[in-house]
Amino acid sequence: MNHDEWIREEFPAISRSLGFIYTPAEEIGERHRKLRKRMEAEGMEAFLVVQKMDYFYLSGTAQDALLFVPLDGEPLLLVKRELERARIDSSLEHVVGLTSLRNLPSLVAEHVGREPRVLGLEMDILPARDYLRLQSIFPNSKLVDGSRILRDLRKIKSPFEIDLMRKAGDIGKKVYQEADKILREEMTEIEFGGLLEATAKKLGHEGLLRVRSFNYEAYSWHVLSGSNGGIVSQSDSPMGGLGLSPAFPVGASRRVMKACEPILVDFGICYHGYQADETRMFSIGKMSPKFLDAYKACREIHDAVLAETRPGADCEGLFLRTLELARALGYEDSYLGPPGLQTKFIAHGIGLELNEYPFLAQGQSYPLEEGMTFAVEPKIVFPGEGCVGLENTVVVTPEGCEILTPITMDIVEV
Amino acid sequence: MNHDEWIREEFPAISRSLGFIYTPAEEIGERHRKLRKRMEAEGMEAFLVVQKMDYFYLSGTAQDALLFVPLDGEPLLLVKRELERARIDSSLEHVVGLTSLRNLPSLVAEHVGREPRVLGLEMDILPARDYLRLQSIFPNSKLVDGSRILRDLRKIKSPFEIDLMRKAGDIGKKVYQEADKILREEMTEIEFGGLLEATAKKLGHEGLLRVRSFNYEAYSWHVLSGSNGGIVSQSDSPMGGLGLSPAFPVGASRRVMKACEPILVDFGICYHGYQADETRMFSIGKMSPKFLDAYKACREIHDAVLAETRPGADCEGLFLRTLELARALGYEDSYLGPPGLQTKFIAHGIGLELNEYPFLAQGQSYPLEEGMTFAVEPKIVFPGEGCVGLENTVVVTPEGCEILTPITMDIVEV
Repeated sequence: MNHDEWIREEFPAISRSLGFIYTPAEEIGERHRKLRKRMEAEGMEAFLVVQKMDYFYLSGTAQDALLFVPLDGEPLLLVKRELERARIDSSLEHVVGLTSLRNLPSLVAEHVGREPRVLGLEMDILPARDYLRLQSIFPNSKLVDGSRILRDLRKIKSPFEIDLMRKAGDIGKKVYQEADKILREEMTEIEFGGLLEATAKKLGHEGLLRVRSFNYEAYSWHVLSGSNGGIVSQSDSPMGGLGLSPAFPVGASRRVMKACEPILVDFGICYHGYQADETRMFSIGKMSPKFLDAYKACREIHDAVLAETRPGADCEGLFLRTLELARALGYEDSYLGPPGLQTKFIAHGIGLELNEYPFLAQGQSYPLEEGMTFAVEPKIVFPGEGCVGLENTVVVTPEGCEILTPITMDIVEV
Repeated sequence: MNHDEWIREEFPAISRSLGFIYTPAEEIGERHRKLRKRMEAEGMEAFLVVQKMDYFYLSGTAQDALLFVPLDGEPLLLVKRELERARIDSSLEHVVGLTSLRNLPSLVAEHVGREPRVLGLEMDILPARDYLRLQSIFPNSKLVDGSRILRDLRKIKSPFEIDLMRKAGDIGKKVYQEADKILREEMTEIEFGGLLEATAKKLGHEGLLRVRSFNYEAYSWHVLSGSNGGIVSQSDSPMGGLGLSPAFPVGASRRVMKACEPILVDFGICYHGYQADETRMFSIGKMSPKFLDAYKACREIHDAVLAETRPGADCEGLFLRTLELARALGYEDSYLGPPGLQTKFIAHGIGLELNEYPFLAQGQSYPLEEGMTFAVEPKIVFPGEGCVGLENTVVVTPEGCEILTPITMDIVEV
């Protein structure tokens, strides 16, 4: 049978029967309206979108492609592989094949009549070689960095997006409900993490947690026990754990988990590209009062942030108030990491990527808005001993916020 | 306790007891000797290495860092996070903290006396914004693309590296030996894939299969059953499968696996950063003669490539001969994908990344050399029906090759 015919005739029904949800055309249309408004304000005649989650957001497909968005005229999706699937995924009208970047200028000229004078690119992530190549094939265009525009667009989530995040949260809830049946003494951190992951995938978790950053690698098995929880690593987190080797030095390790020590499980879920991030504490037998008290402080800080979360609240202000609270509670030197290595945020925006706007962080003074989603994660670290922490993903509502990860916040003791 | 003191005093013994293998100083020294030779030949006064696997290869650490390599003088490792661990991971002598990129020129000037006139960068992967920033902080340096040098360096593996790949192959062997106990009718592809992954992680698999390419996402649960095996997706593979959603449209899906259909399991392993890639066929009950015959052809093509694998064999020639053989066997229109979507390689180099040199592919006419490692993967695809395939990772030896993934090549029927 012919592949393309089979895709056109059989694929839509098969994929839907296996749970595929396609982005509605109105959703894509609304995103483009907002994008064009920003492009116009910044004098951008066109945007060439190259990063996968950026063009997924604006087209509905994650096939290998580029998206050319003119300020005047219809967007043009240029697909390297696989064209027939991209045509099913995307509600955009103009979807064509792209066999070589050399053909891009003629395809663009054919579509909009001329080369753009000012062309936006995601220069935070586009490789230098591709940037120089684009400059050579669009010699008359001024290339400008438009990555901030795309990140701004995505910071307010639509009801469609919030619903996918709620579903990610539901998967997380089921995984954490299974976790106490999986955890047992003498298991290694990575064995526990691997089984949590297998449970999550069966329920639709896509495995990768995407981060918009060069060199940052997506993974989701952050299981840290006992003294491993006191270890800092490569990532911008209060603690990073040991990892599996010098080549992957973060997250769960082959350490055997022991009774009465704190076990932190920071395990995010990705469903249809949308993420929910959550952290809960486990122990085999009761952990010591030092950790129980520190966890109580994390809950207090968490609750204080959520109590102040509403449209208009200042992101930096929320962060700074948690520093005061941590100090008042006696955790100045262990809150968000060991002295000298403390992180400078209490929450990160979340959606298609783990580092979206807003950041409740130092230097991020802007107001929360309805529809923003973020993961708030107070954590306390004792080097050589362990760590505790709590994390929920929330959406800002007209009056306050809704928790998208409604898992019991009590420590799970097995 | 102080974090840095704990890392210095406790971390080395703890990490070794949990299986960490550190890159020996002689190994790092030899890599730098080869790098300097190439830099000298290309008139490069210094190389600023920014990509994680590139600086891991040249320093032994994967902490968040940059590596400055002057042609004359000692390499300087600049660590953003976490400095104390980088000092343990790396045998390099000069390891310092880097709090801001602004400080880079003064740290470099202090180390080598002056700014380099010609500075190499990995422009295939360095983001454009960082490239422009580096040009502004090194205004007198000519920035040149040195990525090919690093990729060339890595194409011949040392005995230390081959041993790590052999260990990755051993993990893969154990996973495939467990697979027939895991697989059962009515299980979904992703459930099977998730449990294979959990099994692998418990044994030391790091989960990510790294690929040197913008937008390519590392994952390892390529489980394709029945008609899903006939679906092409975003990746440069003969088949890609359905995946879990339009946002992750590749690999295993929520399709329930049925009796008598071909189940392809392409499941790579990463151990200490080094990868072994392998594919085997499974079925629940006997698959039809059409697939059995096609698999026999894959084995024949696989054996033919390995019979010709030795130092001096031409990479493109090996690929082209498989096209002839596939044609002679009657699979011209299904070998390496459906017509119009066929891939143009029979093997990809493998090591720290899944797309290293050599490529046994169209347009890649150069000789194999002792110590090269690649994954050879003949695959046959029938759209609407399914696919079969076989894959082994091999190292080129003085007389021929050694298979690093010594798993039975018979179809596993459960």
